[in-house]
Amino acid sequence: MITTDICIIGAGPVGLFTVFEAGLLKMRCHLVDYLPQVGGQLSEIYPQKPIYDIPGYPTINAQELVDNLMKQIEPFAPTFTLGERVEVLEKKDDGSFRMVTNEGTEIQSKVVVIAGGLGVFEPRKPAIDRLEEFENGKGVAYFVKTPESYRGKNVVLAGGGDSALDWTIYLANIANRVTLIHRGETFRGAPDSAEKVFEMAKAGKIDLILKSNLSAVKGDAHLEEVIYVNGHGASESIKADYLIPLFGLTPKLGPIADWNLEIDRTAIEVDTFDYSTNVPGIFAVGDINTYPGKLKLILCGFHEAALMCQSAFKFVYPDQKLSFKYTTVNGVNAF
Amino acid sequence: MITTDICIIGAGPVGLFTVFEAGLLKMRCHLVDYLPQVGGQLSEIYPQKPIYDIPGYPTINAQELVDNLMKQIEPFAPTFTLGERVEVLEKKDDGSFRMVTNEGTEIQSKVVVIAGGLGVFEPRKPAIDRLEEFENGKGVAYFVKTPESYRGKNVVLAGGGDSALDWTIYLANIANRVTLIHRGETFRGAPDSAEKVFEMAKAGKIDLILKSNLSAVKGDAHLEEVIYVNGHGASESIKADYLIPLFGLTPKLGPIADWNLEIDRTAIEVDTFDYSTNVPGIFAVGDINTYPGKLKLILCGFHEAALMCQSAFKFVYPDQKLSFKYTTVNGVNAF
Repeated sequence: MITTDICIIGAGPVGLFTVFEAGLLKMRCHLVDYLPQVGGQLSEIYPQKPIYDIPGYPTINAQELVDNLMKQIEPFAPTFTLGERVEVLEKKDDGSFRMVTNEGTEIQSKVVVIAGGLGVFEPRKPAIDRLEEFENGKGVAYFVKTPESYRGKNVVLAGGGDSALDWTIYLANIANRVTLIHRGETFRGAPDSAEKVFEMAKAGKIDLILKSNLSAVKGDAHLEEVIYVNGHGASESIKADYLIPLFGLTPKLGPIADWNLEIDRTAIEVDTFDYSTNVPGIFAVGDINTYPGKLKLILCGFHEAALMCQSAFKFVYPDQKLSFKYTTVNGVNAF
Repeated sequence: MITTDICIIGAGPVGLFTVFEAGLLKMRCHLVDYLPQVGGQLSEIYPQKPIYDIPGYPTINAQELVDNLMKQIEPFAPTFTLGERVEVLEKKDDGSFRMVTNEGTEIQSKVVVIAGGLGVFEPRKPAIDRLEEFENGKGVAYFVKTPESYRGKNVVLAGGGDSALDWTIYLANIANRVTLIHRGETFRGAPDSAEKVFEMAKAGKIDLILKSNLSAVKGDAHLEEVIYVNGHGASESIKADYLIPLFGLTPKLGPIADWNLEIDRTAIEVDTFDYSTNVPGIFAVGDINTYPGKLKLILCGFHEAALMCQSAFKFVYPDQKLSFKYTTVNGVNAF
């Protein structure tokens, strides 16, 4: 049985920074993440990509940001349960929480912070036979983790949103040939990205196939061919090493759905006073929450974590008055 | 006449980062600050001190953070009016704003963002004759800008809040002798800091003078002596090279008081949806604003700037639909 002040579900950048803000108020944290390593999306989806919108960093590699956050929270000695998913969450009579993971790990805490990011969402997949056969490195992917792995390959992307447009533009410079298949004639994504894709198609730099739908995938050990139905109802085929359907994400709430939290489509509703959910003692920070004006930015999650900890303090130390101190004068060792 | 999309009053860290978030939405910024350099409090009050609570930086020197922010906003080519204070702010018939500084510089913008930090506040000074004579480097200071300048000196601090306690503890290791004068017997500051100060006094490491009030300062070209009235009404004297009264800040709203903004004691009230004030087109971000749950942290100002820019966009481009894009894929050059 692991006992802690705050159990943070999700060890992405916002979950990690929560440890820092909690630590300043003398609250200890335990983090649980289904991924085998800390860092969330940053480590899992784009570890080698630069990030440009972390305040104070003109640019920083995603994994470097994770490493720096780990160093920043080190003085507060957080503990981790990685590669496991919280499946049971119960409120006990004394107001504290008991959690059990899929591996049977038991955790007891006074506060629960859900910092699940997109981790509880999964890619929306086209309904095509045999798709699963080519997942996990055999030709079908739903995220672009390492753009370099597409160098010199024939890549088919599908979708009409920003991800489809942005990756089409990006991979055009890396892949041997990029084809974008979209069921409509116009794009949902940003107008200037759409314009660029149309220009690239016109200039012959990519193949753009509109009013068409994916219908089948073929191959042996690895994907070899993508079949689609064109605007006239006829089947056509493209030789492809990779197929990347980018149809957005769909919530995979799993056990969270049983926790009686107010959920707005794909996010947990919170109060901007302290990012509390409708269940006392459970908070939600980062990409998984929603409120009026919400932006899914890492820097917003940092702010949410800071305000959240002020209220979490009341659950951890109900009899103490919180005295807010700045780190400027004595550094973190004074905490 | 300077014409811009957004005029940012205050070039501290939050004002600077606003340029970045505005730039991503193709809005150009002009910044005005009464200080002669950018960086606000960071550059003016504690340039050489490390900061510990910038997410992703286990520690960063205050001036280094300012330099990094300047580098981060460079692609958006902000312009500056430094060493001047906005004295006139008028709303024109077309909804845009016209500002004039104390030096007569005219600025026209569609949106005004007040990121004034503590800059519009000034230290609360004790009512003592001749105090002003020793300001500006001659023995009386209201901030500790460079702790090293007190090395080997006799320093008298006065006050009962966190600043007085923290600096007493900090300077005890640097100064020849530190004396803390406080009118009460207990402290308003954090209990553990107060406890530490009492312990240090007991161990003879500092002089603690309670139930006493500053009454006079003496010296020639430089401060030499501090006089106070003790709990029995008698005057006593201490040899002192420096006197640092830390009685908090008092708002110096200046022209802001004429702008019809809703002001709660020392801060401008804003809506957390977009950090807008009660005047359409005027926003307030960073330490100068207040709302339920507000924490005066730089990291919170960064979040406020990001959300604020989404609404500012509607004033700058009333006919355009905002398409929110992440910097991750194409970096800032795509904006």
